[in-house]
Amino acid sequence: MIKILGFDADDTLWHNESIFEHAHVAYRQLLAKYHPAEEVDRVLYATEMRNLALYGYGVKGFMLSCVEAAIELTQGAISAQEVREILATGQRMLAHPVELLAGVAEVVPGLARDYRLLLITKGDLHHQEKKISESGLASHFQAIEIVSEKDTPAYARVLRRHGVAPAEFAMVGNSIKSDILPVLGLGGAGVHVPYHLTWAHERAEVPATEKRFRRIAHLRDLPAILPAL
Amino acid sequence: MIKILGFDADDTLWHNESIFEHAHVAYRQLLAKYHPAEEVDRVLYATEMRNLALYGYGVKGFMLSCVEAAIELTQGAISAQEVREILATGQRMLAHPVELLAGVAEVVPGLARDYRLLLITKGDLHHQEKKISESGLASHFQAIEIVSEKDTPAYARVLRRHGVAPAEFAMVGNSIKSDILPVLGLGGAGVHVPYHLTWAHERAEVPATEKRFRRIAHLRDLPAILPAL
Repeated sequence: MIKILGFDADDTLWHNESIFEHAHVAYRQLLAKYHPAEEVDRVLYATEMRNLALYGYGVKGFMLSCVEAAIELTQGAISAQEVREILATGQRMLAHPVELLAGVAEVVPGLARDYRLLLITKGDLHHQEKKISESGLASHFQAIEIVSEKDTPAYARVLRRHGVAPAEFAMVGNSIKSDILPVLGLGGAGVHVPYHLTWAHERAEVPATEKRFRRIAHLRDLPAILPAL
Repeated sequence: MIKILGFDADDTLWHNESIFEHAHVAYRQLLAKYHPAEEVDRVLYATEMRNLALYGYGVKGFMLSCVEAAIELTQGAISAQEVREILATGQRMLAHPVELLAGVAEVVPGLARDYRLLLITKGDLHHQEKKISESGLASHFQAIEIVSEKDTPAYARVLRRHGVAPAEFAMVGNSIKSDILPVLGLGGAGVHVPYHLTWAHERAEVPATEKRFRRIAHLRDLPAILPAL
């Protein structure tokens, strides 16, 4: 039944949210003399959400929101040296080597023998291309689609472009909101592989009545469940 | 001979560099008490070039380089309020309405009746999509390709994906470096429509021996020169 698999990239094939979490820890420490961590997190998240329509997803928008929120949280008392630390943290995030999740290096090439694979990821074009190139996985995917938002119209465009019927398509990813719900909405299947961290913006639930949905603990469990999906 | 036309977007279909130039003027004014304009420009450009591999093109990377260069230029004396002004200028750039260049609204729909049109632009995925949507021109293009770098391999991928023979393809744009030279290198044709401002990074020359190259003063001159290209 399933002939084409779509894979999310960040936190599905390689670590990403853990890199953001390290940056959050450094950011909380930088501002610890002004506010408790909860208040720092609250103002930063509010700043990110306010800027999302203007910045889109990705590290550069995160860096800009970190600077803006730090000025607000310190009422202008933040020093240029502290702003420079925020920029340096962001540059380390962008330069961070790609670290594949356990099992990915074996499972993806194996599946590529039996299925057509698409890589479908959102965010910053330049940074995503860099990570895909560094991952060494690009050759296993028939196409790589970097979109600005992973919603139902975006998936519909990608599937139409590649001549994929939703009934034959399963999307595999760590985000219920971005990887699973829009694909179920088109009549495709969804396989949720949770990452141990989830950005607040990506949290969502799948209705219990969904028949074309599975949750697996590990990508290594994927090949076995596909025939029945 | 020419059946497919590729169009650049920024400074070919709508104003872009003029928006950056306004931001440069504001940036020079902000730092005028520390350095003359030439030194401000020199350090900012050096910062942008140093960060290009990490940030890619677009307004967000420009904003981050502006903050970084301001800290360097003021030896850490820049205030949080001044950093906030840099962020505000960048947010105004991202929110700036799309202003089509003169003639575009008539020439593009007219050409779409006789040629297949592709929009090929580089930079920030999220911001480019926003501008394309606002431009009202999207329906005239058979495909829209947003790439991270407009070099020969990128054009080769785009032409292959759309089944376009280089001999039948002409690229129209304001940048010799990004729009013309890589396409001439593939055996396609190039039409240069200069914008009154050119970012230093995009400056280049076309060898005088190139036969499939034209320069026109205005996009309105494009339809007339295509049959002989």
